[in-house]
Amino acid sequence: MSINNVKAIVFDTFGTITDWRSSIAREAEIVARKKGIEGFDGEPFARAWRAGYRPGMAKVISGEREWTPIDVIHRERLEEILPEFGLDMLNEEERDHLNRAWHRINPWPDSVPGLIRLKKKFLIAPLSNGSLALLAGMAKRAGIPWDFVFSSDMHKAYKRDPHVYRNAVALLGMEPGEVMMGAAHNDDLEAAREQGLRTAYINRPTEYGVDQKKDFEATSDWDIIVDSVEGVAGAMGV
Amino acid sequence: MSINNVKAIVFDTFGTITDWRSSIAREAEIVARKKGIEGFDGEPFARAWRAGYRPGMAKVISGEREWTPIDVIHRERLEEILPEFGLDMLNEEERDHLNRAWHRINPWPDSVPGLIRLKKKFLIAPLSNGSLALLAGMAKRAGIPWDFVFSSDMHKAYKRDPHVYRNAVALLGMEPGEVMMGAAHNDDLEAAREQGLRTAYINRPTEYGVDQKKDFEATSDWDIIVDSVEGVAGAMGV
Repeated sequence: MSINNVKAIVFDTFGTITDWRSSIAREAEIVARKKGIEGFDGEPFARAWRAGYRPGMAKVISGEREWTPIDVIHRERLEEILPEFGLDMLNEEERDHLNRAWHRINPWPDSVPGLIRLKKKFLIAPLSNGSLALLAGMAKRAGIPWDFVFSSDMHKAYKRDPHVYRNAVALLGMEPGEVMMGAAHNDDLEAAREQGLRTAYINRPTEYGVDQKKDFEATSDWDIIVDSVEGVAGAMGV
Repeated sequence: MSINNVKAIVFDTFGTITDWRSSIAREAEIVARKKGIEGFDGEPFARAWRAGYRPGMAKVISGEREWTPIDVIHRERLEEILPEFGLDMLNEEERDHLNRAWHRINPWPDSVPGLIRLKKKFLIAPLSNGSLALLAGMAKRAGIPWDFVFSSDMHKAYKRDPHVYRNAVALLGMEPGEVMMGAAHNDDLEAAREQGLRTAYINRPTEYGVDQKKDFEATSDWDIIVDSVEGVAGAMGV
Protein backbone atom coordinates (compact mmCIF):
# COMPACT_ATOMS: atom_id res chain seq x y z
CA MET A 1 0.00 0.00 0.00
CA SER A 2 1.19 3.51 -0.73
CA ILE A 3 -0.39 6.91 -0.42
CA ASN A 4 -1.63 6.40 -3.99
CA ASN A 5 -4.42 4.25 -2.54
CA VAL A 6 -5.75 6.98 -0.26
CA LYS A 7 -9.41 7.87 -0.85
CA ALA A 8 -10.27 9.76 2.34
CA ILE A 9 -8.22 12.15 4.48
CA VAL A 10 -9.34 12.83 8.04
CA PHE A 11 -7.91 15.60 10.16
CA ASP A 12 -7.36 16.49 13.74
CA THR A 13 -8.97 19.91 14.21
CA PHE A 14 -7.82 21.56 17.48
CA GLY A 15 -4.34 22.76 16.63
CA THR A 16 -4.06 21.12 13.22
CA ILE A 17 -6.85 22.83 11.27
CA THR A 18 -7.65 25.58 13.76
CA ASP A 19 -5.66 27.96 15.95
CA TRP A 20 -7.54 27.52 19.23
CA ARG A 21 -5.05 29.57 21.28
CA SER A 22 -5.49 32.97 19.63
CA SER A 23 -9.24 32.42 19.14
CA ILE A 24 -9.89 31.55 22.78
CA ALA A 25 -7.57 34.32 24.01
CA ARG A 26 -9.45 36.92 21.96
CA GLU A 27 -12.89 35.78 23.14
CA ALA A 28 -11.76 35.82 26.77
CA GLU A 29 -10.31 39.29 26.36
CA ILE A 30 -13.63 40.56 25.00
CA VAL A 31 -15.42 39.12 28.03
CA ALA A 32 -12.87 40.63 30.45
CA ARG A 33 -13.14 44.06 28.81
CA LYS A 34 -16.94 43.98 29.15
CA LYS A 35 -16.53 43.19 32.82
CA GLY A 36 -14.08 46.04 33.31
CA ILE A 37 -11.15 43.83 34.29
CA GLU A 38 -7.90 45.71 33.69
CA GLY A 39 -4.71 44.07 32.48
CA PHE A 40 -6.40 40.78 31.56
CA ASP A 41 -4.22 38.66 29.26
CA GLY A 42 -6.14 36.14 27.19
CA GLU A 43 -3.01 34.14 26.34
CA PRO A 44 -2.39 32.45 29.70
CA PHE A 45 -6.15 32.07 30.10
CA ALA A 46 -6.38 30.11 26.84
CA ARG A 47 -3.39 27.97 27.78
CA ALA A 48 -4.74 27.29 31.27
CA TRP A 49 -8.11 26.28 29.85
CA ARG A 50 -6.49 23.97 27.33
CA ALA A 51 -4.37 22.39 30.05
CA GLY A 52 -7.50 20.66 31.36
CA TYR A 53 -8.33 19.07 28.04
CA ARG A 54 -6.05 16.05 27.98
CA PRO A 55 -6.57 15.16 31.67
CA GLY A 56 -10.35 15.50 31.21
CA MET A 57 -10.38 13.09 28.29
CA ALA A 58 -7.88 10.74 29.91
CA LYS A 59 -10.44 9.71 32.53
CA VAL A 60 -12.87 8.75 29.78
CA ILE A 61 -10.23 6.94 27.71
CA SER A 62 -9.08 4.93 30.74
CA GLY A 63 -12.65 3.97 31.60
CA GLU A 64 -12.45 5.70 34.98
CA ARG A 65 -15.32 7.92 33.84
CA GLU A 66 -18.27 7.08 31.58
CA TRP A 67 -18.70 8.82 28.21
CA THR A 68 -18.64 12.59 28.76
CA PRO A 69 -19.15 15.11 25.92
CA ILE A 70 -16.35 17.56 25.18
CA ASP A 71 -18.53 20.57 26.03
CA VAL A 72 -18.81 19.20 29.57
CA ILE A 73 -15.05 18.66 29.83
CA HIS A 74 -14.44 22.20 28.60
CA ARG A 75 -16.98 23.59 31.03
CA GLU A 76 -15.55 21.78 34.04
CA ARG A 77 -12.10 23.17 33.34
CA LEU A 78 -13.56 26.64 32.76
CA GLU A 79 -15.16 26.54 36.22
CA GLU A 80 -11.76 25.69 37.67
CA ILE A 81 -9.93 28.62 36.11
CA LEU A 82 -12.51 31.43 36.23
CA PRO A 83 -11.69 32.46 39.84
CA GLU A 84 -7.98 32.33 39.13
CA PHE A 85 -8.42 34.88 36.33
CA GLY A 86 -10.86 37.11 38.20
CA LEU A 87 -13.82 36.09 36.08
CA ASP A 88 -15.97 34.42 38.74
CA MET A 89 -18.63 37.11 38.38
CA LEU A 90 -19.79 35.58 35.08
CA ASN A 91 -23.38 34.35 35.25
CA GLU A 92 -24.62 31.07 33.77
CA GLU A 93 -25.45 32.55 30.39
CA GLU A 94 -22.05 34.20 30.12
CA ARG A 95 -20.25 31.05 31.16
CA ASP A 96 -22.17 29.00 28.61
CA HIS A 97 -21.41 31.52 25.87
CA LEU A 98 -17.71 31.58 26.75
CA ASN A 99 -17.63 27.77 26.87
CA ARG A 100 -18.92 27.69 23.32
CA ALA A 101 -15.96 29.80 22.20
CA TRP A 102 -14.54 26.37 21.27
CA HIS A 103 -17.27 26.17 18.62
CA ARG A 104 -16.01 29.44 17.14
CA ILE A 105 -12.27 28.94 16.84
CA ASN A 106 -10.67 30.05 13.58
CA PRO A 107 -8.70 28.03 11.04
CA TRP A 108 -5.02 28.61 10.38
CA PRO A 109 -4.71 30.66 7.17
CA ASP A 110 -3.61 27.67 5.06
CA SER A 111 -6.35 25.28 6.21
CA VAL A 112 -9.37 26.25 4.12
CA PRO A 113 -7.37 26.80 0.89
CA GLY A 114 -5.68 23.41 1.40
CA LEU A 115 -8.95 21.62 2.14
CA ILE A 116 -10.63 23.12 -0.92
CA ARG A 117 -7.85 21.63 -3.04
CA LEU A 118 -7.98 18.24 -1.31
CA LYS A 119 -11.77 18.05 -1.56
CA LYS A 120 -11.56 17.88 -5.36
CA LYS A 121 -10.07 14.40 -5.19
CA PHE A 122 -10.56 13.04 -1.67
CA LEU A 123 -13.31 12.68 0.88
CA ILE A 124 -12.30 15.04 3.68
CA ALA A 125 -13.57 15.09 7.25
CA PRO A 126 -12.47 15.95 10.77
CA LEU A 127 -11.48 13.04 13.02
CA SER A 128 -11.63 15.13 16.11
CA ASN A 129 -12.41 15.01 19.78
CA GLY A 130 -14.98 17.75 19.21
CA SER A 131 -18.72 17.13 19.30
CA LEU A 132 -20.89 17.18 16.18
CA ALA A 133 -22.45 20.53 17.11
CA LEU A 134 -19.01 22.00 17.78
CA LEU A 135 -17.43 20.73 14.57
CA ALA A 136 -20.38 21.47 12.28
CA GLY A 137 -20.87 24.91 13.80
CA MET A 138 -17.17 25.73 13.53
CA ALA A 139 -17.08 24.59 9.90
CA LYS A 140 -20.14 26.60 8.90
CA ARG A 141 -18.83 29.72 10.59
CA ALA A 142 -15.34 29.44 9.11
CA GLY A 143 -16.21 28.00 5.70
CA ILE A 144 -14.40 24.71 6.26
CA PRO A 145 -15.68 22.53 3.40
CA TRP A 146 -15.88 19.09 5.06
CA ASP A 147 -17.62 16.36 3.09
CA PHE A 148 -18.88 14.96 6.37
CA VAL A 149 -18.01 15.03 10.07
CA PHE A 150 -16.64 12.39 12.42
CA SER A 151 -17.23 13.56 15.99
CA SER A 152 -16.18 12.04 19.28
CA ASP A 153 -19.80 11.46 20.27
CA MET A 154 -20.29 9.31 17.14
CA HIS A 155 -17.52 7.03 18.36
CA LYS A 156 -18.29 7.51 22.06
CA ALA A 157 -14.53 7.61 22.46
CA TYR A 158 -11.66 10.07 22.39
CA LYS A 159 -8.39 9.87 20.55
CA ARG A 160 -5.94 8.22 21.07
CA ASP A 161 -8.35 5.36 21.89
CA PRO A 162 -7.82 2.88 18.99
CA HIS A 163 -11.60 2.50 18.66
CA VAL A 164 -11.82 6.01 17.16
CA TYR A 165 -9.57 5.17 14.20
CA ARG A 166 -11.04 1.71 13.68
CA ASN A 167 -14.61 2.99 13.79
CA ALA A 168 -13.83 5.74 11.26
CA VAL A 169 -12.38 3.19 8.83
CA ALA A 170 -15.34 0.85 9.36
CA LEU A 171 -17.89 3.63 8.78
CA LEU A 172 -16.12 4.55 5.55
CA GLY A 173 -16.24 0.93 4.41
CA MET A 174 -12.63 1.26 3.30
CA GLU A 175 -9.37 -0.54 3.95
CA PRO A 176 -7.29 1.21 6.66
CA GLY A 177 -4.62 2.07 4.07
CA GLU A 178 -7.20 3.95 2.01
CA VAL A 179 -7.62 6.46 4.85
CA MET A 180 -5.02 9.08 5.81
CA MET A 181 -4.85 10.86 9.16
CA GLY A 182 -3.59 14.45 9.12
CA ALA A 183 -2.42 15.88 12.44
CA ALA A 184 0.02 18.24 14.12
CA HIS A 185 0.54 15.73 16.95
CA ASN A 186 2.94 12.84 16.60
CA ASP A 187 1.05 10.67 19.08
CA ASP A 188 -2.19 11.03 17.11
CA LEU A 189 -0.39 9.78 14.00
CA GLU A 190 1.24 6.99 15.97
CA ALA A 191 -2.19 5.77 17.10
CA ALA A 192 -3.54 6.07 13.55
CA ARG A 193 -0.60 4.18 12.06
CA GLU A 194 -1.08 1.37 14.56
CA GLN A 195 -4.52 0.86 13.03
CA GLY A 196 -3.11 0.82 9.50
CA LEU A 197 -3.95 4.36 8.42
CA ARG A 198 -1.64 6.50 6.28
CA THR A 199 -0.22 9.55 8.01
CA ALA A 200 0.41 13.23 7.27
CA TYR A 201 2.26 15.36 9.82
CA ILE A 202 1.47 19.07 9.66
CA ASN A 203 3.92 21.04 11.76
CA ARG A 204 2.30 23.64 14.05
CA PRO A 205 5.16 24.63 16.39
CA THR A 206 3.30 27.68 17.76
CA GLU A 207 0.09 25.85 18.70
CA TYR A 208 0.59 25.97 22.46
CA GLY A 209 2.71 29.13 22.61
CA VAL A 210 5.09 29.13 25.57
CA ASP A 211 3.41 25.95 26.88
CA GLN A 212 4.50 23.91 23.87
CA LYS A 213 6.66 21.04 25.04
CA LYS A 214 6.60 18.72 22.01
CA ASP A 215 5.50 18.45 18.38
CA PHE A 216 8.04 20.96 17.16
CA GLU A 217 8.81 18.52 14.39
CA ALA A 218 7.98 15.09 13.03
CA THR A 219 9.40 12.39 15.26
CA SER A 220 8.85 9.50 12.84
CA ASP A 221 8.89 8.79 9.13
CA TRP A 222 5.26 9.74 8.48
CA ASP A 223 4.07 9.32 4.88
CA ILE A 224 3.88 13.08 4.47
CA ILE A 225 5.72 15.71 6.52
CA VAL A 226 4.72 19.31 5.78
CA ASP A 227 3.97 22.56 7.58
CA SER A 228 0.51 23.38 6.23
CA VAL A 229 -2.68 21.83 4.86
CA GLU A 230 -1.73 23.33 1.52
CA GLY A 231 1.43 21.28 1.86
CA VAL A 232 -0.67 18.12 2.22
CA ALA A 233 -2.54 19.09 -0.96
CA GLY A 234 0.72 19.56 -2.79
CA ALA A 235 2.10 16.24 -1.58
CA MET A 236 -1.11 14.49 -2.66
CA GLY A 237 -0.88 16.07 -6.10
CA VAL A 238 -3.96 18.27 -6.06
CA MET B 1 -42.36 25.30 20.07
CA SER B 2 -42.73 26.51 16.54
CA ILE B 3 -40.64 26.18 13.42
CA ASN B 4 -38.93 29.41 14.50
CA ASN B 5 -36.84 27.34 16.91
CA VAL B 6 -35.45 25.07 14.21
CA LYS B 7 -31.64 25.06 13.98
CA ALA B 8 -30.99 21.92 11.93
CA ILE B 9 -32.90 20.36 9.03
CA VAL B 10 -32.27 16.72 8.17
CA PHE B 11 -33.51 15.10 5.01
CA ASP B 12 -34.48 11.76 3.69
CA THR B 13 -32.40 11.26 0.53
CA PHE B 14 -33.75 8.40 -1.62
CA GLY B 15 -36.79 9.93 -3.27
CA THR B 16 -36.79 13.20 -1.35
CA ILE B 17 -33.45 14.74 -2.37
CA THR B 18 -32.60 12.36 -5.20
CA ASP B 19 -34.47 10.74 -8.07
CA TRP B 20 -33.27 7.17 -7.70
CA ARG B 21 -35.65 5.76 -10.32
CA SER B 22 -34.34 7.55 -13.40
CA SER B 23 -30.72 7.33 -12.20
CA ILE B 24 -30.83 3.56 -11.65
CA ALA B 25 -32.79 2.98 -14.87
CA ARG B 26 -30.18 4.85 -16.89
CA GLU B 27 -27.23 3.01 -15.34
CA ALA B 28 -28.91 -0.36 -15.94
CA GLU B 29 -29.63 0.56 -19.55
CA ILE B 30 -25.96 1.40 -20.10
CA VAL B 31 -24.97 -2.01 -18.73
CA ALA B 32 -27.57 -3.81 -20.85
CA ARG B 33 -26.44 -2.00 -24.00
CA LYS B 34 -22.82 -3.00 -23.36
CA LYS B 35 -23.95 -6.60 -23.05
CA GLY B 36 -25.92 -6.44 -26.30
CA ILE B 37 -29.32 -7.05 -24.70
CA GLU B 38 -32.05 -5.74 -26.99
CA GLY B 39 -35.23 -4.11 -25.76
CA PHE B 40 -34.02 -3.75 -22.17
CA ASP B 41 -36.14 -1.26 -20.21
CA GLY B 42 -34.39 0.25 -17.22
CA GLU B 43 -37.63 1.50 -15.67
CA PRO B 44 -39.08 -1.82 -14.46
CA PHE B 45 -35.56 -2.92 -13.51
CA ALA B 46 -35.15 0.10 -11.20
CA ARG B 47 -38.58 -0.46 -9.69
CA ALA B 48 -37.97 -4.18 -9.18
CA TRP B 49 -34.64 -3.46 -7.49
CA ARG B 50 -36.21 -0.87 -5.21
CA ALA B 51 -39.01 -3.29 -4.29
CA GLY B 52 -36.48 -5.26 -2.23
CA TYR B 53 -35.41 -2.25 -0.19
CA ARG B 54 -38.13 -2.02 2.43
CA PRO B 55 -38.39 -5.79 2.99
CA GLY B 56 -34.59 -6.00 3.32
CA MET B 57 -34.51 -3.31 6.00
CA ALA B 58 -37.62 -4.62 7.72
CA LYS B 59 -35.75 -7.73 8.87
CA VAL B 60 -33.09 -5.53 10.48
CA ILE B 61 -35.64 -3.18 12.05
CA SER B 62 -37.62 -6.08 13.52
CA GLY B 63 -34.46 -7.65 14.97
CA GLU B 64 -34.90 -10.79 12.86
CA ARG B 65 -31.53 -9.99 11.26
CA GLU B 66 -28.45 -8.37 12.79
CA TRP B 67 -27.18 -5.03 11.53
CA THR B 68 -26.64 -5.28 7.76
CA PRO B 69 -25.25 -2.39 5.66
CA ILE B 70 -27.41 -0.98 2.89
CA ASP B 71 -24.90 -1.98 0.17
CA VAL B 72 -25.45 -5.61 1.21
CA ILE B 73 -29.23 -5.24 1.12
CA HIS B 74 -29.00 -3.65 -2.33
CA ARG B 75 -26.68 -6.39 -3.54
CA GLU B 76 -28.89 -9.23 -2.30
CA ARG B 77 -31.86 -7.81 -4.15
CA LEU B 78 -29.74 -7.25 -7.26
CA GLU B 79 -28.78 -10.93 -7.26
CA GLU B 80 -32.48 -11.83 -7.14
CA ILE B 81 -33.49 -9.74 -10.14
CA LEU B 82 -30.49 -10.11 -12.50
CA PRO B 83 -31.69 -13.43 -14.02
CA GLU B 84 -35.22 -12.09 -14.42
CA PHE B 85 -33.87 -9.21 -16.55
CA GLY B 86 -31.41 -11.32 -18.57
CA LEU B 87 -28.35 -9.84 -16.84
CA ASP B 88 -27.01 -12.95 -15.13
CA MET B 89 -23.89 -12.88 -17.32
CA LEU B 90 -22.48 -9.97 -15.27
CA ASN B 91 -19.25 -10.85 -13.51
CA GLU B 92 -18.38 -9.88 -9.95
CA GLU B 93 -16.77 -6.59 -10.90
CA GLU B 94 -19.72 -5.60 -13.05
CA ARG B 95 -22.21 -6.54 -10.34
CA ASP B 96 -20.30 -4.52 -7.76
CA HIS B 97 -20.14 -1.49 -10.06
CA LEU B 98 -23.86 -1.71 -10.81
CA ASN B 99 -24.64 -2.11 -7.11
CA ARG B 100 -22.82 1.15 -6.46
CA ALA B 101 -25.15 2.93 -8.87
CA TRP B 102 -26.99 3.81 -5.65
CA HIS B 103 -23.94 5.93 -4.73
CA ARG B 104 -24.35 7.85 -7.99
CA ILE B 105 -28.02 8.78 -8.07
CA ASN B 106 -28.85 12.34 -9.08
CA PRO B 107 -30.71 15.04 -7.15
CA TRP B 108 -34.07 16.38 -8.24
CA PRO B 109 -33.49 19.75 -9.98
CA ASP B 110 -34.75 21.79 -6.99
CA SER B 111 -32.69 19.98 -4.33
CA VAL B 112 -29.25 21.58 -4.58
CA PRO B 113 -30.57 25.14 -5.09
CA GLY B 114 -32.89 24.69 -2.10
CA LEU B 115 -30.16 23.25 0.12
CA ILE B 116 -27.74 26.06 -0.77
CA ARG B 117 -30.38 28.52 0.47
CA LEU B 118 -31.13 26.55 3.63
CA LYS B 119 -27.44 26.12 4.44
CA LYS B 120 -27.07 29.86 4.98
CA LYS B 121 -29.15 29.70 8.14
CA PHE B 122 -29.49 26.05 9.18
CA LEU B 123 -27.29 23.04 9.71
CA ILE B 124 -28.31 20.64 6.94
CA ALA B 125 -27.65 16.92 6.73
CA PRO B 126 -29.12 13.73 5.34
CA LEU B 127 -30.96 11.48 7.80
CA SER B 128 -30.95 8.57 5.45
CA ASN B 129 -30.82 4.82 5.31
CA GLY B 130 -27.74 5.13 3.10
CA SER B 131 -24.22 4.34 4.29
CA LEU B 132 -21.61 7.01 4.91
CA ALA B 133 -19.66 6.08 1.78
CA LEU B 134 -22.85 6.13 -0.27
CA LEU B 135 -24.08 9.48 1.05
CA ALA B 136 -20.72 11.25 1.03
CA GLY B 137 -19.89 9.93 -2.43
CA MET B 138 -23.30 10.92 -3.78
CA ALA B 139 -23.00 14.39 -2.31
CA LYS B 140 -19.52 15.00 -3.69
CA ARG B 141 -20.49 13.81 -7.15
CA ALA B 142 -23.70 15.86 -7.27
CA GLY B 143 -22.56 18.94 -5.36
CA ILE B 144 -24.99 18.45 -2.48
CA PRO B 145 -23.67 20.88 0.16
CA TRP B 146 -24.34 18.96 3.40
CA ASP B 147 -22.82 20.38 6.58
CA PHE B 148 -22.38 16.82 7.81
CA VAL B 149 -23.80 13.36 7.20
CA PHE B 150 -25.97 11.08 9.33
CA SER B 151 -25.77 7.58 7.90
CA SER B 152 -27.60 4.43 8.89
CA ASP B 153 -24.35 2.78 9.95
CA MET B 154 -23.74 5.59 12.45
CA HIS B 155 -27.04 4.70 14.11
CA LYS B 156 -26.79 0.97 13.37
CA ALA B 157 -30.50 1.27 12.64
CA TYR B 158 -32.84 2.02 9.76
CA LYS B 159 -35.76 4.41 9.65
CA ARG B 160 -38.48 4.20 10.82
CA ASP B 161 -36.81 2.76 13.92
CA PRO B 162 -37.29 5.50 16.56
CA HIS B 163 -33.63 5.12 17.58
CA VAL B 164 -32.55 6.83 14.33
CA TYR B 165 -34.41 10.06 15.09
CA ARG B 166 -33.50 10.05 18.78
CA ASN B 167 -29.83 9.40 18.08
CA ALA B 168 -29.70 12.22 15.53
CA VAL B 169 -31.15 14.68 18.04
CA ALA B 170 -28.78 13.47 20.74
CA LEU B 171 -25.72 13.79 18.51
CA LEU B 172 -26.75 17.33 17.66
CA GLY B 173 -27.10 18.16 21.35
CA MET B 174 -30.36 19.91 20.56
CA GLU B 175 -33.96 19.73 21.74
CA PRO B 176 -36.10 17.56 19.40
CA GLY B 177 -38.12 20.64 18.40
CA GLU B 178 -34.94 22.34 17.18
CA VAL B 179 -34.56 19.68 14.49
CA MET B 180 -36.76 19.40 11.40
CA MET B 181 -37.16 16.26 9.27
CA GLY B 182 -37.75 16.80 5.55
CA ALA B 183 -39.18 13.86 3.61
CA ALA B 184 -41.40 12.83 0.73
CA HIS B 185 -42.80 9.97 2.81
CA ASN B 186 -45.59 10.51 5.30
CA ASP B 187 -44.55 7.57 7.49
CA ASP B 188 -41.01 8.96 7.85
CA LEU B 189 -42.47 12.23 9.10
CA GLU B 190 -44.86 10.39 11.39
CA ALA B 191 -41.94 8.56 13.01
CA ALA B 192 -39.99 11.84 13.31
CA ARG B 193 -42.94 13.67 14.85
CA GLU B 194 -43.38 10.93 17.44
CA GLN B 195 -39.86 11.78 18.64
CA GLY B 196 -40.68 15.48 18.81
CA LEU B 197 -39.07 16.67 15.57
CA ARG B 198 -40.57 19.34 13.36
CA THR B 199 -41.71 18.11 9.93
CA ALA B 200 -41.55 19.23 6.30
CA TYR B 201 -43.38 17.23 3.65
CA ILE B 202 -41.94 17.52 0.14
CA ASN B 203 -44.30 16.05 -2.41
CA ARG B 204 -42.64 13.71 -4.93
CA PRO B 205 -45.62 12.01 -6.60
CA THR B 206 -43.52 10.55 -9.44
CA GLU B 207 -40.87 8.93 -7.23
CA TYR B 208 -41.96 5.32 -7.83
CA GLY B 209 -43.48 5.79 -11.29
CA VAL B 210 -46.25 3.32 -11.99
CA ASP B 211 -45.42 1.49 -8.73
CA GLN B 212 -46.34 4.50 -6.58
CA LYS B 213 -49.17 3.51 -4.24
CA LYS B 214 -49.01 6.28 -1.62
CA ASP B 215 -47.37 9.63 -0.81
CA PHE B 216 -49.19 11.47 -3.55
CA GLU B 217 -49.93 14.14 -0.99
CA ALA B 218 -49.50 15.07 2.66
CA THR B 219 -51.73 12.92 4.85
CA SER B 220 -51.31 14.97 8.03
CA ASP B 221 -50.88 18.59 9.12
CA TRP B 222 -47.07 18.65 8.83
CA ASP B 223 -45.40 21.94 9.80
CA ILE B 224 -44.48 22.60 6.18
CA ILE B 225 -46.14 21.09 3.10
CA VAL B 226 -44.42 21.92 -0.20
CA ASP B 227 -43.43 20.28 -3.46
CA SER B 228 -39.70 21.04 -3.57
CA VAL B 229 -36.65 21.70 -1.39
CA GLU B 230 -36.76 25.26 -2.68
CA GLY B 231 -40.26 25.34 -1.20
CA VAL B 232 -38.83 24.38 2.19
CA ALA B 233 -36.33 27.22 1.89
CA GLY B 234 -39.11 29.65 1.09
CA ALA B 235 -41.23 28.44 4.01
CA MET B 236 -38.24 28.82 6.35
CA GLY B 237 -37.65 32.35 5.13
CA VAL B 238 -34.27 31.91 3.45
